[in-house]
Amino acid sequence: MDMVTNPKARLSAISQSNPKNIIAYQTGSLLLGVTFLIMAEHLSQSELDYPFKLLEYFNGFRISKAIFSACELGVFDLLLQSQKPMSASEVAQQLGTSEDGIERLLDVLVAIEIVDVEVVQGTAFYSGTDVANLYLAKSSPKSLHDLIIYHSQTIYPLWNNLVDAVREGKNQNEKTFGLPSEEIFSAIYRSEEEMLKFMGLMNSTWVIDGHDIVTAFDLSSFKTVVDLGGCSGALARELAKEYPSSTVTVLDLPAVVQTARRHFAQHDDTICFQEGDFFEGEIPPADLYILARIIHDWKEEKNLKLLKKIHTACHPGGGVLIAEALLFENRRGPTVVQMFSLNMLVQTEGKEHPPSHYTRLLTEAGFRDVQIL
Amino acid sequence: MDMVTNPKARLSAISQSNPKNIIAYQTGSLLLGVTFLIMAEHLSQSELDYPFKLLEYFNGFRISKAIFSACELGVFDLLLQSQKPMSASEVAQQLGTSEDGIERLLDVLVAIEIVDVEVVQGTAFYSGTDVANLYLAKSSPKSLHDLIIYHSQTIYPLWNNLVDAVREGKNQNEKTFGLPSEEIFSAIYRSEEEMLKFMGLMNSTWVIDGHDIVTAFDLSSFKTVVDLGGCSGALARELAKEYPSSTVTVLDLPAVVQTARRHFAQHDDTICFQEGDFFEGEIPPADLYILARIIHDWKEEKNLKLLKKIHTACHPGGGVLIAEALLFENRRGPTVVQMFSLNMLVQTEGKEHPPSHYTRLLTEAGFRDVQIL
Repeated sequence: MDMVTNPKARLSAISQSNPKNIIAYQTGSLLLGVTFLIMAEHLSQSELDYPFKLLEYFNGFRISKAIFSACELGVFDLLLQSQKPMSASEVAQQLGTSEDGIERLLDVLVAIEIVDVEVVQGTAFYSGTDVANLYLAKSSPKSLHDLIIYHSQTIYPLWNNLVDAVREGKNQNEKTFGLPSEEIFSAIYRSEEEMLKFMGLMNSTWVIDGHDIVTAFDLSSFKTVVDLGGCSGALARELAKEYPSSTVTVLDLPAVVQTARRHFAQHDDTICFQEGDFFEGEIPPADLYILARIIHDWKEEKNLKLLKKIHTACHPGGGVLIAEALLFENRRGPTVVQMFSLNMLVQTEGKEHPPSHYTRLLTEAGFRDVQIL
Repeated sequence: MDMVTNPKARLSAISQSNPKNIIAYQTGSLLLGVTFLIMAEHLSQSELDYPFKLLEYFNGFRISKAIFSACELGVFDLLLQSQKPMSASEVAQQLGTSEDGIERLLDVLVAIEIVDVEVVQGTAFYSGTDVANLYLAKSSPKSLHDLIIYHSQTIYPLWNNLVDAVREGKNQNEKTFGLPSEEIFSAIYRSEEEMLKFMGLMNSTWVIDGHDIVTAFDLSSFKTVVDLGGCSGALARELAKEYPSSTVTVLDLPAVVQTARRHFAQHDDTICFQEGDFFEGEIPPADLYILARIIHDWKEEKNLKLLKKIHTACHPGGGVLIAEALLFENRRGPTVVQMFSLNMLVQTEGKEHPPSHYTRLLTEAGFRDVQIL
């Protein structure tokens, strides 16, 4: 673990002067990264007397689900909106839950310090902590609500089939949701509701990490930018804000673009949306292409084909910005990226890679001057 | 949290001289208890800048499932039995898994320090840590294997329906496994395989906590002891070992007794098994009855009826030993017991209680001299 002392450390690369420049840039796993850096404290000899840490790990799923469920039930929004601390009975009435159930859940949230409590004449009154109000209430600008819903309703059940994923070496969309394992995004986008959940997840991610990504390099020389698979447009918006003289277009599947327009559009939006399929359809000419958390979803041959197609479409002097979590070259870390790669096994056909993999892939596709930051 | 500084602290009570003595004694949640004492570190102001702890909680389920799945696949047994560190390829071949999948899983286990790795000429060779060998390998006398299997295959999927449990105020056996929510133990014992998992869980629990429970009091004056719902007999064996002049009988459902005899009997067993149903059938006369983690499964009226029946069957001067996790009187802790009570909501019709609840229940059933330790 000593190789990752700064959780915000990144590997990235920037293009300079070549006809086909490439920018490979790591990002995305701040969330996971930070998490596992903390969890992976050293298991010491004292564990042999009593397995404290091990038992903590065993109970991780209960803690996750208690927070996720409170979020799904609207507990944090209610507590934020309430003018005063509320009793379990009031919360139950407002949210339409059992009083007994919500009381046990609230007490657990108090215990892990996500909800505050004061007891007045034997009755407990609950209120949200600052952390809950900032990150768990849906209405907060820093809300992780959509990320939580996606973790709770999609990733948690998928991980129930981790044994089979490891045994078979493939994702568990079929066993978990009855969806074909080959068509990853038909699984992810199987209904408008599911699409919204996933887009919400990506939106939360770029709201947190997007600014860091677009400012890590000076991208001002690229006048036309296409974000391939740009989803809700959150990363594209960060880019347009930072480089107001560039034209930024999000290219994504028609249903995604329509949903983005309906649910994620902003009244002063400076980005454009274009319906398309970057595997099957045409890729519009541009100076810079963004592939943010795209490569890690797919098998190598598909990625190579895509990069060759981008190389052909790219204006001379242009490039591609790849945003992915990077494994160390010896693949012995960072923890978060290893965990993320296991997640990719359960959900997709892809995995995480070390920088050399991207260099090789890009070189094979015809790009030069790969730089990693 | 300051009320629970010693994770082994217990509340209990011992009978002295009365015709119907009662011993109420807390236990059982060492596992959970220790866990949550560690996890509930203070969420500080720094969480507002970046929600480190919160994101750690979100990922708890992945850590749990990675360890559980490795256990189910037999990773820890294989590494323990192997004379030398093994490559992912060798592990995959031995366990019949994909190489890619097992490699990603092993790398995550290395990251959380449950598996060791050494890299020789670019190839990673894995071996179990002392902690894994002691607690995760099935063959170890301190193995938590059965507890893990039960958590992974039964509790994890049940908690996927925590939202509904809270909303409806009842267990989720029906939604999760298609089993009637009223008949808790037909759900738990729905097949011999499921019965074995649950009995394994209870057996693991008493192997860890049993000795402490039976030695917390001097029970030598009770010559006939019946452990009601004594399951695999692990707690009864601890009692028989400590009080060799007492006769110890486990009374449980016929199928449980048969399974206990088949799978948990020991060649020099000093305990007896008796088939019966303590709710529907007769309770044999005895000096001491044990109800270890029974009361918390059931609704109050059922528990009251059971305790009245025990009171009638009990020899003069006898008593009952109740082993349960106890909430503080104000119900504001301990964390572990609150979490356990939420677990009871998802799985049973019962909950955890403070000492006063047990005193009231026992007094109402006709017992005197309730003592809590």
